Amino acid sequence: MQKLGKQTVKFETPPTILEVASIVGPKEANGPLAKYFDQCLEDEFWGEKTWEKSESKIIKETVNMAISKSGVASTDIEYCFAGDLLNQCISSSFGLRELNIPFLGIFGACSTFVEGLSLGAIMIEACAQNVLCAASSHFCSAEKQFRFPLELGNQRPQTSQWTVTGSGAAILSKSGEGPYITHITSGKIVDMGIKDANNMGAAMAPAALDTLISHFKDTGRSPNYYDAIITGDLGHVGKEILIELAQDKGFNIKSNYNDCGVLIFDKEKQDTHSGGSGCGCCATVFSGYFFKQLKDKKIKRLLLIATGALTNSTSTQQGESIPGIAHAISIEI
Amino acid sequence: MQKLGKQTVKFETPPTILEVASIVGPKEANGPLAKYFDQCLEDEFWGEKTWEKSESKIIKETVNMAISKSGVASTDIEYCFAGDLLNQCISSSFGLRELNIPFLGIFGACSTFVEGLSLGAIMIEACAQNVLCAASSHFCSAEKQFRFPLELGNQRPQTSQWTVTGSGAAILSKSGEGPYITHITSGKIVDMGIKDANNMGAAMAPAALDTLISHFKDTGRSPNYYDAIITGDLGHVGKEILIELAQDKGFNIKSNYNDCGVLIFDKEKQDTHSGGSGCGCCATVFSGYFFKQLKDKKIKRLLLIATGALTNSTSTQQGESIPGIAHAISIEI
Repeated sequence: MQKLGKQTVKFETPPTILEVASIVGPKEANGPLAKYFDQCLEDEFWGEKTWEKSESKIIKETVNMAISKSGVASTDIEYCFAGDLLNQCISSSFGLRELNIPFLGIFGACSTFVEGLSLGAIMIEACAQNVLCAASSHFCSAEKQFRFPLELGNQRPQTSQWTVTGSGAAILSKSGEGPYITHITSGKIVDMGIKDANNMGAAMAPAALDTLISHFKDTGRSPNYYDAIITGDLGHVGKEILIELAQDKGFNIKSNYNDCGVLIFDKEKQDTHSGGSGCGCCATVFSGYFFKQLKDKKIKRLLLIATGALTNSTSTQQGESIPGIAHAISIEI
Repeated sequence: MQKLGKQTVKFETPPTILEVASIVGPKEANGPLAKYFDQCLEDEFWGEKTWEKSESKIIKETVNMAISKSGVASTDIEYCFAGDLLNQCISSSFGLRELNIPFLGIFGACSTFVEGLSLGAIMIEACAQNVLCAASSHFCSAEKQFRFPLELGNQRPQTSQWTVTGSGAAILSKSGEGPYITHITSGKIVDMGIKDANNMGAAMAPAALDTLISHFKDTGRSPNYYDAIITGDLGHVGKEILIELAQDKGFNIKSNYNDCGVLIFDKEKQDTHSGGSGCGCCATVFSGYFFKQLKDKKIKRLLLIATGALTNSTSTQQGESIPGIAHAISIEI
């Protein structure tokens, strides 16, 4: 393993993403990526009494599906990295409490899935054969916790994003035929003073820029090295900001850049305003769509940059700004 | 690096805990370990307007102190692992947002500090020279968030624990004169169905037992190998349970076992009932007390097992039990 510059590591023997799984909610099932997900739920409860229990079931079943599809015995999976948006990450800890695999809880807000893939890949480099990474979010449990009771029918501003109901999970393995995680660029916290809790895209875009630039500097690569540069969930607003910010710094990403939050919903028909968000956004769009694109060789080099807003409702009420973070991995076949 | 059994890794070249720092609140300053902490605060606010901002300041200043004491330039610290008990870990992300070091947020409830040391040590094995690990908690912000408004003056049952106000931070380094992290045993989630949110010790003790037994099985060591076996924050109630559970499984830990939550407060004089808890409990007691004992060679072999209750107030209200987790590291000189 080789350190490149300040924030990037390059794998000499890159770990394989052996298998993935994704389960999404009914809104995502009506979106443009529906056919790529392993399972689409008919309602937000999935037979559970609360949204929190439903979210736990979603991450549990997604993880079970990823393990089952991978053909790796769960006893041969040595570590699980997982996290979510609920207070104290209860979706993961309740959903995965019967897993019986050493569990390392992570919190990177919506960057959690790529944080997990990064740490999982490093764990494989250091000592493990197989590692599980998962993340989830749920529109209803997130709205209730971060914003207003859903029953209130509150109006949402045009800059707001729609938390994805869903979970993505991946099994990383020391050996396999790819796609491979070749580089990791771990992000710093970046806080540019944005205070609008209904504009997470603007709050997270500077963090995405910081990690993007670090990745190019550290690796010596330029944007056109990649077939696709994909951010986690900047949404329509944040995506446009990132394109402009990158342009200002001399990086033209316009032709090969997109965002999971933009891709998962139909802006015109689905009334999701600035697009999708939540740990489940990047996790399902990667596990559902991009993994298949890589497997089918339609994309050969992907830079996946998951972004997170490290905030909560208390900090917003106390007048705080919104620190952002972004973690990137280069995935190649 | 060598895998031992199912859950343990052994370092061939064990990373050094180069330096530590600890800052605690006024209650801890009146406890039996006061003289070991780097700084004791006179009040719970430390000049800030809210408890949350105070907690952020505590982790920030603790981290700055650890970096400064270590003599390592902050630009030479390659990763920061940190977490806390506040919703979405805002104490860490706000406190450390100016750090300018790649940041990996972790959540293991009160096991967070040892989870950070574990991942930090693995990061050093894989690719880093210097890694920072930190955790914090705050009595007032935790009570407000998990239980009742402090102004209510609610009565606390005898099994309840007192969240430590404080933070501990450690700098791990590839080279140094120890103490060394020689083994890591990462814990599984264990849920034995305990539902009493005022008895976290009972909820976490089975997880501590599971990790303890795994550690001894994987390493072939027995309890008497260690000068001290220390759990994070089982408190008086959980400590007694763990001694009994271990005895039932054939492990006699009575003579060399203690708990950070038991050590940090004076049970008779401080009215803290079952003892201390919170991410800051294990973090400050290790960084304050045990690190010095190791440096002074009063303890040569320490097994540190941090325990966490992976619960929140919503899950309790929804009738859920309390999953526990415990992560262990062996520290030797």
